[in-house]
Amino acid sequence: MKTKTDYLYITTKSNREIVNITDEVREIVKKSGVKEGLVLVNAMHITASVFINDEEPGLKQDFLKWLEELAPEKPDYKHHQTGENNADAHLKRTIMGREVVVAITNGDLDFGPWEQIFYGEFDGQRKKRVLVKVIGE
Amino acid sequence: MKTKTDYLYITTKSNREIVNITDEVREIVKKSGVKEGLVLVNAMHITASVFINDEEPGLKQDFLKWLEELAPEKPDYKHHQTGENNADAHLKRTIMGREVVVAITNGDLDFGPWEQIFYGEFDGQRKKRVLVKVIGE
Amino acid sequence: MKTKTDYLYITTKSNREIVNITDEVREIVKKSGVKEGLVLVNAMHITASVFINDEEPGLKQDFLKWLEELAPEKPDYKHHQTGENNADAHLKRTIMGREVVVAITNGDLDFGPWEQIFYGEFDGQRKKRVLVKVIGE
Repeated sequence: MKTKTDYLYITTKSNREIVNITDEVREIVKKSGVKEGLVLVNAMHITASVFINDEEPGLKQDFLKWLEELAPEKPDYKHHQTGENNADAHLKRTIMGREVVVAITNGDLDFGPWEQIFYGEFDGQRKKRVLVKVIGE
Repeated sequence: MKTKTDYLYITTKSNREIVNITDEVREIVKKSGVKEGLVLVNAMHITASVFINDEEPGLKQDFLKWLEELAPEKPDYKHHQTGENNADAHLKRTIMGREVVVAITNGDLDFGPWEQIFYGEFDGQRKKRVLVKVIGE
Repeated sequence: MKTKTDYLYITTKSNREIVNITDEVREIVKKSGVKEGLVLVNAMHITASVFINDEEPGLKQDFLKWLEELAPEKPDYKHHQTGENNADAHLKRTIMGREVVVAITNGDLDFGPWEQIFYGEFDGQRKKRVLVKVIGE
């Protein structure tokens, strides 16, 4: 059995941003030497997501607008009584998900035709970390 | 360590449909010979889901109605400027999730009393693929 | 390759409740002897969740209030024609997610600074089970 652990460091320019990290994850999988197995990719911060969808700029805008409708930024969250102001970011990340697990087959990500891995930042402009863990043989 | 990779092919009759795939996944796990491990089951298309819930026809209708409320079909998504008309399907799939990871114990899915695996299609009537990846020993 | 399977048993006092299970999961990982691998933690019941977020009491209240807005308790779900009254709990669990997969690095949960594992109960006051499956070496 082989495993490989790596981390991506991401600082977004905007407070909310969707960043394609497929190439970075693929490179780690290739370096791991694992031919058959799984790769876990997860945000290590609780106001950010890792998810799989389509690389299309309009759709990214749709996601951000939709998340604002479902989990709006507003003052009256209980979480804000601690001095925080990012409760909506915790909720947005929950909709989009913390992690993805992707199959590795023949040494590469076993993906459908449009699958791409994204980091979703909802409380950004700070250095954040994404974990990539490869396990297999 | 053993691994097994297999694919299910699903073409739904309706545009939106929830299909129970538990038996198909269980059969792949049994064929793999893995007694202790994990199985990843994921949609390979970005307008479809794999999720775990209850086999109850009324609940399936509730899910589809609820998804239409949270992520309605409507013309004014940015994604539609590309010529696509399925932005709502990308959002619906996000709510329901891309994948499940299930424990394999004693050679079978280690499930609670009501857990069943479903494929959720939100842009159907075309041939789609589900990946099943078994890893363990 | 090593694997370990364990179960947590949880009976909440309230119908809806969020319970921190990080210590229990960490203990199982340490007992497993796995130094590098993955741990799957999932609810075995379809009206409950396992998710990762922040240990902050106000935020837990925000989550429960927000879930009631997105997936309200109400009589007119189709699922209730079976005699059940908990359709909203199935929907709430879907938003929060069934499972998490966490990396194990150097024999411990490989977590960011604020990550904690929670059990989310949406139809409680009954004995429920959470599965913890460790795989690695």
